[in-house]
Amino acid sequence: MADLRRDPIVGRWVIVDTDHPNKPEDFEYEQYTPKGGKCPFCYGSEAMTPPEIEAFRYPDTSPNTPGWQVRVVANKFPALQIEGNLDRRGVGIYDMSNGIGAHEVLIETPYHNKDIPDLLNEEVEKSIAMTCRRAQDLIKDRRFKYIMIFKNYGPAAGASLEHPHIQIVALPMVPKNVMEEIKGAQNYFDYRERCIFCDIIRQETQEKERIILENKYFVSFAPFMSRFPFEIWIMPKRHNGYYCHTPAEEIPALASILREVIARLKKVFPNLSYNFIIHTSPANGDGGGFDGYHWHIELMPKLTRVAGFEWGSGFYIVPTPPELAVQYLKEAK
Amino acid sequence: MADLRRDPIVGRWVIVDTDHPNKPEDFEYEQYTPKGGKCPFCYGSEAMTPPEIEAFRYPDTSPNTPGWQVRVVANKFPALQIEGNLDRRGVGIYDMSNGIGAHEVLIETPYHNKDIPDLLNEEVEKSIAMTCRRAQDLIKDRRFKYIMIFKNYGPAAGASLEHPHIQIVALPMVPKNVMEEIKGAQNYFDYRERCIFCDIIRQETQEKERIILENKYFVSFAPFMSRFPFEIWIMPKRHNGYYCHTPAEEIPALASILREVIARLKKVFPNLSYNFIIHTSPANGDGGGFDGYHWHIELMPKLTRVAGFEWGSGFYIVPTPPELAVQYLKEAK
Repeated sequence: MADLRRDPIVGRWVIVDTDHPNKPEDFEYEQYTPKGGKCPFCYGSEAMTPPEIEAFRYPDTSPNTPGWQVRVVANKFPALQIEGNLDRRGVGIYDMSNGIGAHEVLIETPYHNKDIPDLLNEEVEKSIAMTCRRAQDLIKDRRFKYIMIFKNYGPAAGASLEHPHIQIVALPMVPKNVMEEIKGAQNYFDYRERCIFCDIIRQETQEKERIILENKYFVSFAPFMSRFPFEIWIMPKRHNGYYCHTPAEEIPALASILREVIARLKKVFPNLSYNFIIHTSPANGDGGGFDGYHWHIELMPKLTRVAGFEWGSGFYIVPTPPELAVQYLKEAK
Repeated sequence: MADLRRDPIVGRWVIVDTDHPNKPEDFEYEQYTPKGGKCPFCYGSEAMTPPEIEAFRYPDTSPNTPGWQVRVVANKFPALQIEGNLDRRGVGIYDMSNGIGAHEVLIETPYHNKDIPDLLNEEVEKSIAMTCRRAQDLIKDRRFKYIMIFKNYGPAAGASLEHPHIQIVALPMVPKNVMEEIKGAQNYFDYRERCIFCDIIRQETQEKERIILENKYFVSFAPFMSRFPFEIWIMPKRHNGYYCHTPAEEIPALASILREVIARLKKVFPNLSYNFIIHTSPANGDGGGFDGYHWHIELMPKLTRVAGFEWGSGFYIVPTPPELAVQYLKEAK
């Protein structure tokens, strides 16, 4: 018989197939190998992108020329636009606003074909440090309520460009999913006077059944209430609500654990597509007054397709229990 | 500049690209043509499925033999199992339960390759009438709190079998997404003393900008706050919270509007995959005491892939405004 498991943060139930769990070889996922070639994000093509917003570069190199390690540019086809004031208004019973926001692209490496596991730890550190810098810069703009940082890798994950990149979107309202997590964390805090994420870390590090890897500052595990098979969360051990407040000395540990879990996932599932999303407290204290959130990364391999049942219910069917997924990920050194 | 639009029921924001909207020919979607052949759902293969739960049949034919028009069987690989009592328990800070429920499959037609638009109206009526009967039967079981009825058509929509079928799942708890809609409708009712869905119908039928088709009992429209391009809702004009309370005389009108909107969608997008989900009040008064919900169908064509941004935020980017989608659907006769 399957397990039903409840997410203690947002109250979502998932169905976990503990009876006939899928092994890695049972997944028919869409494999992705970059076609390669030269693109606007490649070294030497800097003039083909919108102007550089910020970059880590070798000394004595100029913006919009080669010499960079990571490079941030405006998205050429932004979902939201930076100019103007927010204008919210009603349309009968509906509400709307003009599309104010920012949409930036962080090019993670000069190499077109290198995914995170193919990079050096120092290179991944630079991407992470740059996402923090951009988030710190964007939240200075008081029109923005939330900075969303995420990566789509491979077409199955929604990536339209091959060259590895992270997207940074500044939103003029706190997204619904984020508010739900914050409210859930607040309800727990009101009841127990503890951070629910800290309690999750405590239980997971004691039980060890779902831990994949840990280092001095971070822990990675397959959550008890995973929505997707082989879903992985990475969480700072020290309580911290804001991703962009991550201390500089913790960034190498974050780069290392992120790189290693993706490497292991891709060892189990060659040529895998995936998404990861940084979940953090809203900018500018816009989280409804609650400051006890705990930032973390949610990493979702694209092994299955979301169907009608999931869309309709928010009830996810997970064909591989997280405890079993962890066994495969631990063996994949 | 894009529009930001807010769902007045659940408070979700979407980004609608009104500047450079996608035309139908701009979508690179996965086209699906059934391979055909004979499967366990085909006429004459009745012995290959679990035993028939219920069917509409020609007189003097026996269960589990040919002679049926629509046929309901247990899912051979059920997500939940019908035997046993619900056993909820805690695991440290987590909650879980055994996987009690029901998972049935309604085979819509003896023909392997016929999608809804290829059927006669009378045939679609039989499927609809049967989903109502099954829902009425399943809610008699007091362990079940919600009956979820949905269809996945095509592999991009998560269908693993080609032969057209609808799934019926009885759940031992009301799903999170459903509770959110009910709470949203209740908040609106508390404030305005009116049903929000009735108000949506009133505004849409007055403005006419997003109406695709209507008949005596039903209206179909592209919602103002669509999450997906060419998303379509079908709603009963008369206020009714429970799908399974649909009066018999309204069923032909429902079959006709469902068949026609799918036919038009597939005229605009040949060989399209899609999902539809029936949103209804929970069984047995389990909707938190509020009885003012309004059942409807949400139909989602699979034209785009959901990426990291949507997963992270619940903020959807809609490349075709619903007002424009309606123009294409109206022309596609």
